[in-house]
Amino acid sequence: MHILLTNDDGVYAPGLRALRKELMRLGEVTVVAPALEQSGVGHSITLLEPLVVKSVDDDDGSNLGYSVEGSPADSVKLAVCELLSRPPDLIISGINAGSNAGINVLYSGTVAAAIEGAFFKITSIAISLELAEHFDYPHAARNAVKVIERILANKPEPGSLFNVNLPAHSRGEPKGIKVVPMGVGRYGEGFERRHDPRGRTYYWMTYAPPYHLDGPETDVTALCNGYITVTPLHFDLTRYDQIDPLSKWDWSL
Amino acid sequence: MHILLTNDDGVYAPGLRALRKELMRLGEVTVVAPALEQSGVGHSITLLEPLVVKSVDDDDGSNLGYSVEGSPADSVKLAVCELLSRPPDLIISGINAGSNAGINVLYSGTVAAAIEGAFFKITSIAISLELAEHFDYPHAARNAVKVIERILANKPEPGSLFNVNLPAHSRGEPKGIKVVPMGVGRYGEGFERRHDPRGRTYYWMTYAPPYHLDGPETDVTALCNGYITVTPLHFDLTRYDQIDPLSKWDWSL
Repeated sequence: MHILLTNDDGVYAPGLRALRKELMRLGEVTVVAPALEQSGVGHSITLLEPLVVKSVDDDDGSNLGYSVEGSPADSVKLAVCELLSRPPDLIISGINAGSNAGINVLYSGTVAAAIEGAFFKITSIAISLELAEHFDYPHAARNAVKVIERILANKPEPGSLFNVNLPAHSRGEPKGIKVVPMGVGRYGEGFERRHDPRGRTYYWMTYAPPYHLDGPETDVTALCNGYITVTPLHFDLTRYDQIDPLSKWDWSL
Repeated sequence: MHILLTNDDGVYAPGLRALRKELMRLGEVTVVAPALEQSGVGHSITLLEPLVVKSVDDDDGSNLGYSVEGSPADSVKLAVCELLSRPPDLIISGINAGSNAGINVLYSGTVAAAIEGAFFKITSIAISLELAEHFDYPHAARNAVKVIERILANKPEPGSLFNVNLPAHSRGEPKGIKVVPMGVGRYGEGFERRHDPRGRTYYWMTYAPPYHLDGPETDVTALCNGYITVTPLHFDLTRYDQIDPLSKWDWSL
């Protein structure tokens, strides 16, 4: 099996390195990842600038793959279209430093890379580890590969898309794996207003935990409760239930 | 009615200006938009840098709103959380210079701004105009506001999300308005490989028309056929049909 490994924290990020080590048990792994950290880039692609690509070696001199001076989605697109000699059988994105659950899925470069893989009809899995003072990536990578093996054992159809979140090590051993929908509630984020030495106004985005942890179980709540979460995703944003009702509206110009 | 107007082409873009002029017939319009063009940024948000905000005036000295040195999603988030004295009744994003149909919806900063609005449970509409040698924004803005009026006349529930694409002026008068799903096929994009004067390899993303214009009608095909397209969207990426089947898999750790 040929696995394309990418992320949004950059080609040298420890989460990617730990995951690569474990993934090599499953097959050949080629890394194509952003040269620099790209957190919060969402599904951005680079249309107006050139993408500089460099071959990257591991510490022992063996070839790791490529760094791309662009986004995670750029990396996957370029890998599949140009850099790899044959399309990969599986695309893995992660391990991201911080969870990608709830509506953060839409801001996530890690998930966007997996969505880009699904565009190519290649099964793609995003892996993220909940934020903590200390990230235990080797431990998370072992659990991530167990989840990946479970998914592959069920032979998902090509282009299947999964979002996996792992609870922080500080919560103890994961209580298990849960299949849950994506949360759709807002987080309590806000902004802090400041003035620079020249008097210009600027804002920092602040972080607050998600609102509404009651209600049906989602990736956000199951993760908070110490479970590894698996969410099957798709990228068709159409509200199909609205197509017929809307078609009956008066749309004369 | 208080309308928040944003885009991904920047606060001074002609598409936004033309749309603002027409929208003022419907209510009070406040512009909060990126300071610079943000094409292809998708749903990126700015976590690691401060957002510099400036008050922006129109040519006649009247206040237009604010420019934000960030993404379209940043602009909406900041507008709703901080800059506007009360939440807007409606969020409009556009007119984008170029269509946002098919899987390009996921790359689109214009649509991401509307999705961000829907996170706040505010009805949000993205408006894009198909690429052409010449963009006739005043004409497109008149048609866009007709579509917006049709949507509002049907009193959509707060947080409803719509993606509207207008055919290029070169196709003649729009043949009508069609409610269609988002296309899910890949575009025929690729990369052109070059070397810089220092010998470094770089790639430009190239453009090609979408594959597969046959099959069920989508936003991509209806637009090509000269129709204005309206696609109801949502931002819950969960594949609900897969939750039950996947829950039955063996997930023991």
